[in-house]
Amino acid sequence: MSPDVVKHSLGGKKVLIVYAHQEPRSLNGSLKDVAVAELSQQGCTVTVSDLYAMNFEPRATGKDITGTLSNPDFFNYGVETHKAYEKRSLSSDIIEEQKKLQEADLVIFQFPLYWFSVPAVLKGWMDRVLCQGFAFDFPGSYDDGFLKGKLAILSLTTGGTASMFSKTGVNGDFRYFLWPLQHGTLHFCGFKVLAPQISFGPEMASEEERKRMVPSWAQRLKTVWEEEPIPCSPPWYFGQ
Amino acid sequence: MSPDVVKHSLGGKKVLIVYAHQEPRSLNGSLKDVAVAELSQQGCTVTVSDLYAMNFEPRATGKDITGTLSNPDFFNYGVETHKAYEKRSLSSDIIEEQKKLQEADLVIFQFPLYWFSVPAVLKGWMDRVLCQGFAFDFPGSYDDGFLKGKLAILSLTTGGTASMFSKTGVNGDFRYFLWPLQHGTLHFCGFKVLAPQISFGPEMASEEERKRMVPSWAQRLKTVWEEEPIPCSPPWYFGQ
Repeated sequence: MSPDVVKHSLGGKKVLIVYAHQEPRSLNGSLKDVAVAELSQQGCTVTVSDLYAMNFEPRATGKDITGTLSNPDFFNYGVETHKAYEKRSLSSDIIEEQKKLQEADLVIFQFPLYWFSVPAVLKGWMDRVLCQGFAFDFPGSYDDGFLKGKLAILSLTTGGTASMFSKTGVNGDFRYFLWPLQHGTLHFCGFKVLAPQISFGPEMASEEERKRMVPSWAQRLKTVWEEEPIPCSPPWYFGQ
Repeated sequence: MSPDVVKHSLGGKKVLIVYAHQEPRSLNGSLKDVAVAELSQQGCTVTVSDLYAMNFEPRATGKDITGTLSNPDFFNYGVETHKAYEKRSLSSDIIEEQKKLQEADLVIFQFPLYWFSVPAVLKGWMDRVLCQGFAFDFPGSYDDGFLKGKLAILSLTTGGTASMFSKTGVNGDFRYFLWPLQHGTLHFCGFKVLAPQISFGPEMASEEERKRMVPSWAQRLKTVWEEEPIPCSPPWYFGQ
């Protein structure tokens, strides 16, 4: 068996990395690069949505619907994008991201924490791409969300240290801020969520600690397909 | 004493409403309008930042710094905007919002909940306007944040009903999703946070319930200056 065949039998998965950092040589850039390298090495097909480089539009507006609106006299973004999804009349940048997402087995979100959440450019990706009809419907949310069968990981860097993001730290437990993203967004759309990869306080860390952040992410990705999802319910986030 | 003098002695406060809805005739639009009317009636000076109408930029990029970058070879958004704030070389749209915020005694954020959080256009307002040096520093966060002395209220509409946003509901308690916004952002910058005004599930509510949402907000605003802030610590959010 040739090495190529081995690779494919171990890999063959599709991964989408949604990446939100302005500087290619940043830690976020390195974490993205090493994920591309490691997963490609496994035989995965890796696609990157580099949101700043794409100048991705974050605002949810009427421009997201091509052609006529269902109700031009009273604009309802949720209703209009739901109908546009069904009529295949969403704007091309949204359709493009939905295609990448539809094909992915695993989605990695790589970003620096801004205000206990994702940067606005990534929030806009969530607001616009995960529309009703595509990512969920009623019924069709949480365990029945339309993206079920897919895995997701938040890989993020923080300003504060791990102790600042503990139950007794000034920022509270890091799991608290994960709730809207992991439960309210990813779980809502049906994703199984793997443990977050949090690179705490690189700007406050020692050179040695900082240097370990990239290879330890690469190391984790070697066995990522064997991981069990976290239990996505309140006790994981807020329990003792 | 003329009615005008009475108004000023009762009012005279400055209020900034940061408003993020695309449709003026929406419930969010009505809640914004009634707040402007009621607070103006009290003698307050009310300013509205209508983010979609302004086509407010949500992306945090090098364009936010006018003139030369401190380190053009390695772009660090936090570092560059901090320095630009001190050199008064932030982009004019950020400076404009910072002026409005600096003058305000009370800031009301009026928005529909998108993915358990603010719409990207409002997240971008937070990411870009609340920069280091202006809204906080180290030291200078949480109770010592630079916006201390100001009050803030989140006034939001949700898709789900109140029971869906309860401890045993599918979405978990509404207080869980408030943590990154109220604690991680507003409290971090020194704001005292008043109770959120949540208009639950207007699209699922009866006509009668929906009709009550606007006047009940106006009613609350009549005595808003007498309200006590919520205790902004984990027990309020995650306690039993």
